[in-house]
Amino acid sequence: MISGMTGAGQGILIVVSGPSGVGKGTVIAGLLERYPDLEVSISCTTRPQRQGEMDGKNYRFVSDSEFEQMRRSGQLLEWAQVHGQHYYGTPRAPVQEALAAGRTLVLEIDYQGAKSVREQLGNQSVLVFIAPPSWPVLMERLRKRHTESEQAIAERLASAREEIENMGMYDYVVVNDEVPEAVQQLSGILQAERQSMERFDWRGLREELLAQADEWG
Amino acid sequence: MISGMTGAGQGILIVVSGPSGVGKGTVIAGLLERYPDLEVSISCTTRPQRQGEMDGKNYRFVSDSEFEQMRRSGQLLEWAQVHGQHYYGTPRAPVQEALAAGRTLVLEIDYQGAKSVREQLGNQSVLVFIAPPSWPVLMERLRKRHTESEQAIAERLASAREEIENMGMYDYVVVNDEVPEAVQQLSGILQAERQSMERFDWRGLREELLAQADEWG
Repeated sequence: MISGMTGAGQGILIVVSGPSGVGKGTVIAGLLERYPDLEVSISCTTRPQRQGEMDGKNYRFVSDSEFEQMRRSGQLLEWAQVHGQHYYGTPRAPVQEALAAGRTLVLEIDYQGAKSVREQLGNQSVLVFIAPPSWPVLMERLRKRHTESEQAIAERLASAREEIENMGMYDYVVVNDEVPEAVQQLSGILQAERQSMERFDWRGLREELLAQADEWG
Repeated sequence: MISGMTGAGQGILIVVSGPSGVGKGTVIAGLLERYPDLEVSISCTTRPQRQGEMDGKNYRFVSDSEFEQMRRSGQLLEWAQVHGQHYYGTPRAPVQEALAAGRTLVLEIDYQGAKSVREQLGNQSVLVFIAPPSWPVLMERLRKRHTESEQAIAERLASAREEIENMGMYDYVVVNDEVPEAVQQLSGILQAERQSMERFDWRGLREELLAQADEWG
């Protein structure tokens, strides 16, 4: 057996985007169930901690001035102000450590964040867009899920439109019609990326197989 | 629901190569079980029909002169003479029909055939190399499977070496250590290729979603 061959490739940052309400969280949860070795990148945010949320698990909750300090000192891989209110950002160090160690990280961000990640990390990132099967289905999911004002829903729909307009910059699109199928498609993307010549250490494998062939004849 | 969206992408020719004995047939059979919509490309050959083989199912059996005529008139996508003996070739027409209709075809050929397919079909083809977990395992599988002379086995091992030397030209590598894992990896590759922006009709999806957004607000 060739030692440590499986997973000996490069680390991968899987970026998942898609309109609010499309079910990104559910699909990512399904992926994590199938691949327990995956890690989720924890964003930091200036928005208030909600009941049931744990600092450092769902988000790292920081003050406006802490956020500003992180941003200025280049500690954020990407950041955004959402609906002109709170700030959200991805700490750079944990991502770089994970990639250097060959691990796989999942990061849920919007298209502007995805663009910024691609610019900085190139093909160490894999960009996946989760699309709704139709607009009415997206509207229905949004209304079901959120006990929000009509204005908040309108804001989310406007953002959704913008996300959809920018789907062309992604590497893959997964349509979340039925969750199990979407999870299978996202799992397939991870699997394929791990086996791709760009990431898999095929040179190491080839060298070892040929050395063994010389030895065994 | 967006009509005919899933699978509305381009056809794909999945080319599977790998050393004799690595278990290509078993892994492909596992893939076909998971994806009943896949088709297998039937090669034509000048070698004699073996007991239990059906003409047009395993191979299309042709005479030397028929083969030569097909080759000369450009009816073959790729062809090869194996071990300096019999000819094998892939008829071009069924492949082109399947691709034009958006279907997925699987084709098992050697690295020279894979090279020729890539040159002619570009990224309509996906090249997958099935590698053994180690050289001794490959030797063992070859000896177990074939009731062949030592000379025939030596020939197969020489070809295996050549296949391994050329694995760098493939898009993906799958290590067939345990069959179910290899089948899952190959399935993931197919899944991912279908969701890739290169193949998935994301422009059609985007257009339809945005039109619905305009209509529904």
